[in-house]
Amino acid sequence: MADGYCVGVDLGGTNLKAGLLDDKANILSQFSVPTEVERGRDAVVGNILAAAERAITEASVERSQVRGVGIGSPGPLSHRRGLVINPANLPCMKDTPLRQIVTERTGLAATLENDANAAAWGEFWAGAGKDVSDFVMFTLGTGVGGGVVVDGQLLRGHFENGAELGHILVQPGGRKCSCGQEGCVEAYSSAYNLARRAEEMMAEGRSSTLKKLVDAGQMVMAEHVVEAAQAGDALAEQVWDEACYYLAVAIVTMQHVSNPQRVVLAGGLIAAGDFLLECVRKHAQAITWHLLNDLPEIGFATLGNDAGLIGAAGCAWEAHRTGQW
Amino acid sequence: MADGYCVGVDLGGTNLKAGLLDDKANILSQFSVPTEVERGRDAVVGNILAAAERAITEASVERSQVRGVGIGSPGPLSHRRGLVINPANLPCMKDTPLRQIVTERTGLAATLENDANAAAWGEFWAGAGKDVSDFVMFTLGTGVGGGVVVDGQLLRGHFENGAELGHILVQPGGRKCSCGQEGCVEAYSSAYNLARRAEEMMAEGRSSTLKKLVDAGQMVMAEHVVEAAQAGDALAEQVWDEACYYLAVAIVTMQHVSNPQRVVLAGGLIAAGDFLLECVRKHAQAITWHLLNDLPEIGFATLGNDAGLIGAAGCAWEAHRTGQW
Repeated sequence: MADGYCVGVDLGGTNLKAGLLDDKANILSQFSVPTEVERGRDAVVGNILAAAERAITEASVERSQVRGVGIGSPGPLSHRRGLVINPANLPCMKDTPLRQIVTERTGLAATLENDANAAAWGEFWAGAGKDVSDFVMFTLGTGVGGGVVVDGQLLRGHFENGAELGHILVQPGGRKCSCGQEGCVEAYSSAYNLARRAEEMMAEGRSSTLKKLVDAGQMVMAEHVVEAAQAGDALAEQVWDEACYYLAVAIVTMQHVSNPQRVVLAGGLIAAGDFLLECVRKHAQAITWHLLNDLPEIGFATLGNDAGLIGAAGCAWEAHRTGQW
Repeated sequence: MADGYCVGVDLGGTNLKAGLLDDKANILSQFSVPTEVERGRDAVVGNILAAAERAITEASVERSQVRGVGIGSPGPLSHRRGLVINPANLPCMKDTPLRQIVTERTGLAATLENDANAAAWGEFWAGAGKDVSDFVMFTLGTGVGGGVVVDGQLLRGHFENGAELGHILVQPGGRKCSCGQEGCVEAYSSAYNLARRAEEMMAEGRSSTLKKLVDAGQMVMAEHVVEAAQAGDALAEQVWDEACYYLAVAIVTMQHVSNPQRVVLAGGLIAAGDFLLECVRKHAQAITWHLLNDLPEIGFATLGNDAGLIGAAGCAWEAHRTGQW
């Protein structure tokens, strides 16, 4: 018999996932509905509330056994104030006190966490980090997201923008990042940016088998770069090797900062499997110090697209455990 | 009336500082004695025990009002196990269970912390960080030391080597660091290393007013570089500017990792005053993102050489408060 249940809501720009989980991370209900950003704030808030109720109803549990609701949302947001601040892909949610609204309208305790932290917490609680206490996650997608757990607690920071690991500087003065900085790990190692680098190098006149995509008017994707690198294309090999190298630089920096036992890679790029993992590990081994034997293990996240939902419910469980909603 | 007292011991390779502090960081007694490393472990341990007793006696407080002893020691060490592991400048203390020895021999609770963490905790508790909850310290001396406080707690990490901020990679593949890595911030921004860089550039044929020191068989010191840079020497200006720039790179990386409210600079190099602070701030402003307004304040530590002693006692107070010795 589980000690109750928590609702998890993973709020995205397109879809909203919700579900009910017990305290062992077993999923009793789970579904996805459109967020409907275009219909405005009231509609989005209504969809969140309806999804939370449906998650409970579909699981057929007693409402009195529900301990609370955890919501993962795009940032910037304030966990402490329960406030969605100004997410680029949810403009209608600007300055929405979502925690308070959910608490008042459902009668349940609620907690708000940024989606990257929630996903990292999901892996920490129930996935690739469940057996450690100090843990770092890099999510390699369009950008590079991050999450850091220090001694069993999410690192949020004073301004609540901590663990923005994609913006660790790995090549100061280097490639421009969408954030405005130069030389962020995101500018080299995200799925999106490594494909852009391949295009840039071809535009500068470097030859590559990827040129046929450009000539056909297609956008180069990370998976094209992976395939071409595996087939021995020199330009693709260089882009891939540098993406792995700069990720290793960021990992070694995290080794010396939060000193985790394990670093986990997540996001679309991990479809490359061992081709990614072995290259990152090789570079990390080569560039780390050997003064102390504290290079973290480097592995893959295991929850896939469910990390956000599981983590949102997990954040509610953690708030329930500590009494800090 | 203070709520009792704690002993602080700052164990160094040459001297051992000790004192008694109340819970407001008022120092009731304070002195320094030789560590006597050359006399071996039993002598060093004896000196620590005698210093702890003397700190109490000199302060003329009731022994029953003493809550415990905090010891800051060179690392690597294990705070959790209370174990000094293998400090380079205290070889006789290898594998010494110092917390247990102090507890058994004094009858007082004891806690062991690495000296860089203890100094950062001192500034956090009673110095330049006493009004914040998320705080980072860079100590610019022979090397670059670090300390990180996250939400009011020292960041230690799984391997207990966290906050080794001098080994953040700021120029991967760059200047060799004493730790074996290439491109650590320590290799550019420590007092020792920036002076070495000036010598290296002269050895490569660059001219500088510092050449007269080399010709006279003198070692270039950081203060010589500062003076020459202030007087307009181009080589010294470059070395100094790069030292400040790479420190700013490490600060911006910390902005995105632990997201502190304040970064504090300590160590011998801060004698350069505004010449240091303004240059570091200028670079940090130039390279940070402007997406969010979360660049930490950058300032100086205020406790000077007492930070280690105050912090050691402060660690004991924190252990007393939490009950976790």
